[in-house]
Amino acid sequence: MVWGQEVRERWLWQAGLVTSAQHDPSALLTLDVDGGTFRLRHATRADLPDILELLADDQLGATREDSSEMAPYERAFEAIDGDPAHLLVVGELLETGEPGEPAGAVVATFQLSFIPGLSRRGAWRSQLEAVRVSARLRGLGIGAAMVQWAAEESRRRGCALMQLTTDKSRKDAHRFYERLGFAASHEGMKLTL
Amino acid sequence: MVWGQEVRERWLWQAGLVTSAQHDPSALLTLDVDGGTFRLRHATRADLPDILELLADDQLGATREDSSEMAPYERAFEAIDGDPAHLLVVGELLETGEPGEPAGAVVATFQLSFIPGLSRRGAWRSQLEAVRVSARLRGLGIGAAMVQWAAEESRRRGCALMQLTTDKSRKDAHRFYERLGFAASHEGMKLTL
Repeated sequence: MVWGQEVRERWLWQAGLVTSAQHDPSALLTLDVDGGTFRLRHATRADLPDILELLADDQLGATREDSSEMAPYERAFEAIDGDPAHLLVVGELLETGEPGEPAGAVVATFQLSFIPGLSRRGAWRSQLEAVRVSARLRGLGIGAAMVQWAAEESRRRGCALMQLTTDKSRKDAHRFYERLGFAASHEGMKLTL
Repeated sequence: MVWGQEVRERWLWQAGLVTSAQHDPSALLTLDVDGGTFRLRHATRADLPDILELLADDQLGATREDSSEMAPYERAFEAIDGDPAHLLVVGELLETGEPGEPAGAVVATFQLSFIPGLSRRGAWRSQLEAVRVSARLRGLGIGAAMVQWAAEESRRRGCALMQLTTDKSRKDAHRFYERLGFAASHEGMKLTL
């Protein structure tokens, strides 16, 4: 399904999305949600422990991650952060009523990578990986806002397609992405090396 | 399924694979097949028309490609070729009995991209895209040899995982990849932008 302009605009309106350039140069997007303000920004090395907690707080991720040894994660962060073909993003929640301007808690993350290719008339495609939203904040529209931002950024960079794979056991995730316009058109195949 | 050393060695023996460093510095792999020698090498800009023919000679690709306008493909080639995170590879067939050392006909192609990530303990993963073998050369083991080369190259670069998506209508492709050890564990979801 093509995400048409009309659908997109209706969605933006429903989600109360405000592009944040007017408000905060470091924020990629801000969104008023129940209980506070959600803000997307580029991840820094200091966010690594919070990101790992999100990756591990998951049925599949629990057995795959091991934050007792940070060096592999730090090397991976350097590789991602040092290449403009990859964006590592975190979402913070700034709760209403907090005094001053505290750093929000990291409650969400994703990685977006941009991949050139010859097929589909030399189309660039973007790829979403490691999308996570804190379990206590599901249903507020945070995940949809993140994916929508990723789609807009992918369009801005000239991508014709955004793609992801999601484990077949994650039925809720399939419905979530299908609601956002994704088609489950492909088998996602993995070979452990 | 983990592709264990024993399985790999048996496969290499069955396929008659010879790593080509001893034979031709420009070849990534050579393989004796019925009727000649198959050779993998890095693609050059001059290979573009042949690669496009392979991409278009396909049930799905036929409507997606348009080689009457080469500029988008040339830009994509530059983007792939200019970034060591991507390998564009072609396979040539040098037919037995050809005089001298003719340039072989391009009969196969694939792209292999290397993507860093935080999940799975900061694992790099490789991604196969646009795998094609000329229809007249199916069943000779060429596709398997290419995927096996891609897996070895991915291991050599420290990847923990090789992944691809394949359209759900390509049932033969699913069986092919499963025979090579891939698990169809994920939904492959695409959003047209």
